[in-house]
Amino acid sequence: MRAVDIIAKKRDHGELSRQEINFFIRGFTRGEIPDYQAAAWAMAVLLNGMTPRETTDLALAMAYSGGVLDLSGVVPLAVDKHSTGGVGDKVSLVVAPLVAACGLPVGKMSGHGLDFSGGTLDKLESIPGFRTDLTTEEFISQLRSIGLVLTGQTLELAPADGRLYALRDVTATVPSIPLIASSVMSKKIAAGAPAILLDVKVGLGAFIADLEEARSLAELMVSIARQAGRRAVALLSDMNQPLGFAVGNALELREAIETLQGGGPPDFREHCLVVAGHMLALGGAADDELHGRSRAEKALHNGQAWERFRALVAAQGGDVSCIEDPKRLPTARFIRQFMAPQAGYLSQIHARLVGEATVILGSGRERKGDPIDHAVGVIIHRKVGDKVDAGDLLFTVHANDENLLETAGKEILAAHRWSETSVEPLPLFYGAIR
Amino acid sequence: MRAVDIIAKKRDHGELSRQEINFFIRGFTRGEIPDYQAAAWAMAVLLNGMTPRETTDLALAMAYSGGVLDLSGVVPLAVDKHSTGGVGDKVSLVVAPLVAACGLPVGKMSGHGLDFSGGTLDKLESIPGFRTDLTTEEFISQLRSIGLVLTGQTLELAPADGRLYALRDVTATVPSIPLIASSVMSKKIAAGAPAILLDVKVGLGAFIADLEEARSLAELMVSIARQAGRRAVALLSDMNQPLGFAVGNALELREAIETLQGGGPPDFREHCLVVAGHMLALGGAADDELHGRSRAEKALHNGQAWERFRALVAAQGGDVSCIEDPKRLPTARFIRQFMAPQAGYLSQIHARLVGEATVILGSGRERKGDPIDHAVGVIIHRKVGDKVDAGDLLFTVHANDENLLETAGKEILAAHRWSETSVEPLPLFYGAIR
Repeated sequence: MRAVDIIAKKRDHGELSRQEINFFIRGFTRGEIPDYQAAAWAMAVLLNGMTPRETTDLALAMAYSGGVLDLSGVVPLAVDKHSTGGVGDKVSLVVAPLVAACGLPVGKMSGHGLDFSGGTLDKLESIPGFRTDLTTEEFISQLRSIGLVLTGQTLELAPADGRLYALRDVTATVPSIPLIASSVMSKKIAAGAPAILLDVKVGLGAFIADLEEARSLAELMVSIARQAGRRAVALLSDMNQPLGFAVGNALELREAIETLQGGGPPDFREHCLVVAGHMLALGGAADDELHGRSRAEKALHNGQAWERFRALVAAQGGDVSCIEDPKRLPTARFIRQFMAPQAGYLSQIHARLVGEATVILGSGRERKGDPIDHAVGVIIHRKVGDKVDAGDLLFTVHANDENLLETAGKEILAAHRWSETSVEPLPLFYGAIR
Repeated sequence: MRAVDIIAKKRDHGELSRQEINFFIRGFTRGEIPDYQAAAWAMAVLLNGMTPRETTDLALAMAYSGGVLDLSGVVPLAVDKHSTGGVGDKVSLVVAPLVAACGLPVGKMSGHGLDFSGGTLDKLESIPGFRTDLTTEEFISQLRSIGLVLTGQTLELAPADGRLYALRDVTATVPSIPLIASSVMSKKIAAGAPAILLDVKVGLGAFIADLEEARSLAELMVSIARQAGRRAVALLSDMNQPLGFAVGNALELREAIETLQGGGPPDFREHCLVVAGHMLALGGAADDELHGRSRAEKALHNGQAWERFRALVAAQGGDVSCIEDPKRLPTARFIRQFMAPQAGYLSQIHARLVGEATVILGSGRERKGDPIDHAVGVIIHRKVGDKVDAGDLLFTVHANDENLLETAGKEILAAHRWSETSVEPLPLFYGAIR
């Protein structure tokens, strides 16, 4: 078997066998198949596609390219969650402690943000001292002791995916449904959880704007999980406008804390309850997602979810006083309110444009490893469908540079669109794939 | 400008600007754009295509990625020739001295064979001592002194093409019309000749089997030449069956010598006269290709073409006694005749299969740099359209290993197909593109 023949087969629209995919991924992981062959292959996959069978084989080949965690001896049943990424997506900060508070262990490995899309690790790192670089041993030990972990991806897990993802990032081969599905699922399979909740974002601020495309990604990922002997549910959720009000790391952390304490923006709170309900059902801690939802609601109300979050921060070395008094979290020097320039119904708050504006402020990174500013960001005050009068408060920008504040403010204003006639609010979810 | 954005643009079916192509090729030549980005880009080009404008810009960018020879101070007008490659294609061995004998200088850089397709350099290297590694200085000096050079590609010319071609070879990105056209023309432009004859082979033993595809390649190359200020004509010629009778290095050299001395297979002699006629017209040494043809016919007849070939061999260090007495050229130990197993009209002698059989014997190489056996090969004795009786001599295999002789003999027999009804001979040419 030769790598060049496998590339040629995919170039010519052929379907690769499991043996061919295993040969390619094994050779790539060992460094026997060089980056330039993998890059040509990835472009052929992006342009010519893969069948669900090929995608599943690719996910499994990458999952087993390194060690695979076995959590069965650690906790009775751990549940994991993955979001395909969006703007204002601080769901894991709330949902992980919420589900753990209902007695179901959550061990989750997250990522840093890239481009306009935020990352859970960046939000957690707003807390002074909080460690996101737990070793596999620390991950297992903390999952056992407090039933809750939120940390970074362990380097040894799915090394083929790590290497391929870095290559795709610089060869314009990221936006491919089979490559995205196999990348996500290889990491989730390697991370060991027997039950996985997938939050597939769709809309202007997601990697996928088309609902049908998002649905096929979701179906593909659920089917891969099943092939790997895991249970999975995928939710299709709206990402046309930012989720909640806050976009930016410490600002989103504050909003998560409010939500864990029983408050928070209504749409974000509802989103978290639905996700938690599904996770609890998936992990057998509730009869179904509605029962799970009511358990989760109780845990928000009685303070148990908040207590779990405090335990998480303490366990991972974070300064608990900062979450107890969020004023002590990083705070921007310049805070300016922007008013609505006209009256009408809000018809769009373009999530991607809002996300890009906060990157301008310094909340995100254009390249891996760039430093970020945890304090900056924006609070939007209105949602699509709201009726606004000219002069009403529209959004508040938090910045550490007045010029950047000006630029970002203009961009965020331009992300808002008005209608003279009334506009329906956006739904939170478009469906669930089991 | 970023390489990844240029890859993404081609991935998304965009048309690259001249600036983008220059940026990419310049960065690649300097090693600033790594192989993996060029590999992904090449696959996107192969699958999504390039406009003639992009292809021309690519050819020019690669031509000017190193030094470009200027022959205007060396000879009044030099003419160059390129064949896209085939089986039994020893045309340059005859045509270059023939055109030079008619007073038009020919400076040609050729290649070694790869896969089933032979290379002019391998055929010349059958002559003991013959050098094919002239420096640029030697090339210029010999072109000035005897008006004839046949050597290898100078390393400094079109370095971007050399590097990209090596990468395409291992990333399954060779069979792309824009990439082939720009590769060929970048080398021809860098080699400095103001007039270029392109012999575009089409058929079972060519890289392109489809006439319309060959026609677009030919049109593209002629148009690139024009954009670079060169004159060019492309001939579309048949490569369904081997050209002439001999396939294999020393065997083909012997056939070329016979042809230069006024004999040789009728189809091969005619092919050479047509090509030479066009080259003479293109270089202004004849009023048109028919006038050129009759000048060439005379030069074969009066011994001047043969005399030029002797001068070429002497100038490049070859043992002239070997071409004066071809029995002294490398000769195989085992020579076996194969007879027709049935009567009928020959409807196919599959050139590619014949070429592959001679590679089995050792006449060609599967990888660059492999050693080859100059003595081995096959002489076919019949052509498509011939009426053959059972037991008639069909072909003769020359081998240095009896087992390989057996295997190759079976393959070559299998390359022959019979018809009960009469079959038209194959044409030599399908047209000319100016």
